[in-house]
Amino acid sequence: MKNSRVTIKDIAKELGLSVSTVSRALKDHPDISVETKKAVVELSQRLKYKPNMMALSLKNSRSNIVGVIIPELVHYFFSSVISGIQEVADKHKMRVIVQQSNESFEQEGEALDAFSDGWIDGLIVSISKETSTYEHFDELQAKGIPIVFFDRPIEQDNVDSVVFDDYKGAYDAVEYLLKIGRRSIAHFAGPASTHVGRERLRGYKKALQDNGIPFSEDLVLYADSFEKGGAGVEALVAKGIEFDAIFTCNDFTAMGVLKALKREGILVPDQVAVVGFGDEDIARMVEPPLTTVRQPGREMGRVAMQTLIDKIDKVPTKERVHTLEASIIVRETT
Amino acid sequence: MKNSRVTIKDIAKELGLSVSTVSRALKDHPDISVETKKAVVELSQRLKYKPNMMALSLKNSRSNIVGVIIPELVHYFFSSVISGIQEVADKHKMRVIVQQSNESFEQEGEALDAFSDGWIDGLIVSISKETSTYEHFDELQAKGIPIVFFDRPIEQDNVDSVVFDDYKGAYDAVEYLLKIGRRSIAHFAGPASTHVGRERLRGYKKALQDNGIPFSEDLVLYADSFEKGGAGVEALVAKGIEFDAIFTCNDFTAMGVLKALKREGILVPDQVAVVGFGDEDIARMVEPPLTTVRQPGREMGRVAMQTLIDKIDKVPTKERVHTLEASIIVRETT
Repeated sequence: MKNSRVTIKDIAKELGLSVSTVSRALKDHPDISVETKKAVVELSQRLKYKPNMMALSLKNSRSNIVGVIIPELVHYFFSSVISGIQEVADKHKMRVIVQQSNESFEQEGEALDAFSDGWIDGLIVSISKETSTYEHFDELQAKGIPIVFFDRPIEQDNVDSVVFDDYKGAYDAVEYLLKIGRRSIAHFAGPASTHVGRERLRGYKKALQDNGIPFSEDLVLYADSFEKGGAGVEALVAKGIEFDAIFTCNDFTAMGVLKALKREGILVPDQVAVVGFGDEDIARMVEPPLTTVRQPGREMGRVAMQTLIDKIDKVPTKERVHTLEASIIVRETT
Repeated sequence: MKNSRVTIKDIAKELGLSVSTVSRALKDHPDISVETKKAVVELSQRLKYKPNMMALSLKNSRSNIVGVIIPELVHYFFSSVISGIQEVADKHKMRVIVQQSNESFEQEGEALDAFSDGWIDGLIVSISKETSTYEHFDELQAKGIPIVFFDRPIEQDNVDSVVFDDYKGAYDAVEYLLKIGRRSIAHFAGPASTHVGRERLRGYKKALQDNGIPFSEDLVLYADSFEKGGAGVEALVAKGIEFDAIFTCNDFTAMGVLKALKREGILVPDQVAVVGFGDEDIARMVEPPLTTVRQPGREMGRVAMQTLIDKIDKVPTKERVHTLEASIIVRETT
């Protein structure tokens, strides 16, 4: 069932070269050695590689279409980023085409393949959890199609990316809890395997340290869902661990926490204050409305799209990391 | 900024022909008259129309890519449908590419244009609120690219579509409320301009009628958001209208209702029962957990994608409307 058209990637793999080397060899680029060019051309002929017609026909024109690759759509966060991207795209009469990687490195590559025929003007990507190398983006970049990354930082220089200051968001949340008099602040953390999980935990620890509060392993649990939030509260209560606040890694976890606290007869915010992370749509709707750290997803989308348009329009700017600040929205759980 | 490449649509418009006629004329189809063919070919040459290379190169091959056009991504419902589409696509090693129409007829046409070069194997669409004619889908269909519609019914024969039985979902919800002894059931309805708004209101009225309960205009308000749900309760209370249940057109409205009832000191479910619609993720998370009508969005996506794959694979089936049933999920607000 899989499309068997030979791509530039197949040639690169076969010859042990990078995609951009192959691309440049095919274009007779002066930086590529004669031997390499010969090998590339021979193999392309043998494999019956056809440079994509669409790519050739559009080489010097614009399609006014930008591609977006995200891990998953069923997250309020990613769909809010897309609404920001779309807002800026609409203003510039550009279309947005979205693909999902399902958090898979392989599917991210396939999504790129579908975009690699050169019919998009630019690409906005939030990499999958499995992605730690970036060579699969080379083919597009070799074609001069700009890329902007968002949310998940890229360990590579000379790329444009838009990220949140998760560390500072967490730091501010914990400092706010200390300021309103809480001393035994639990953290229901995200997976240590994720950047945001680590950064928020780091912000939590640093805020405690800067305020002279000793860190206690007992007060940190890994819980990043509605169900795990509830189970986390039960675990703390069962172990008899004292706490007067819980700072969670997302709003859904906070909702599970609120429900479990109610079940245990623990009053919010009198006995335990709760702070979420994300400011999902529902944070203001729950009872009591949730204090949380706002991640401006829509703004992230706007900044990513504007950055991409500047690159498409060749506005001279240096590649850089655009950091957006999170802010605390105080409601009734603190 | 807009792409100025001449499309088959421009030719059709200029000559006052349908897109499919122009498409067939260019392919020298026997059904098209010699005069029409001549006019089409002359204009194409004058406008320097170039049949898309990508389309030609892929004409007899498959890209294993399907397109999806939805009104908006920032709705849990649409993203859950996409997760169902993606699930079936993954099994068949096909890729899913998504575009938004922003509920605009014009943008729906532009999204189609981006897909119309023939590089997709099939299309799944939920039409925009503005869409009431369907000729813009002709070009794709003329190319033999199958289309499946979902959620919003298409007033046209011979199309495949997947819809919910909104009427029956509403009927069942109201009948359930009557069965548990409620007699003054308010309905917070969706806009009368939408099919689902009308169908749910119709189900509400019919259930009352079938059970010998007189319909009262006073008990129907138009309220389809968290804020309007709260305002609706205030309005009923201010007018001194008696009610012992509220059936809302979506879960967010129900959440606004729950909050306002609490503010008014009205006990749920003892004094007033509340039933939502949608079974959004948050319905089970709120306090008290919300009784609601489940719309199986993910299943809708799966059925739409399977139907599309059958059409791509030319499995012989008659076009038809696939109707999915909604079901009541009883939780603690009733």
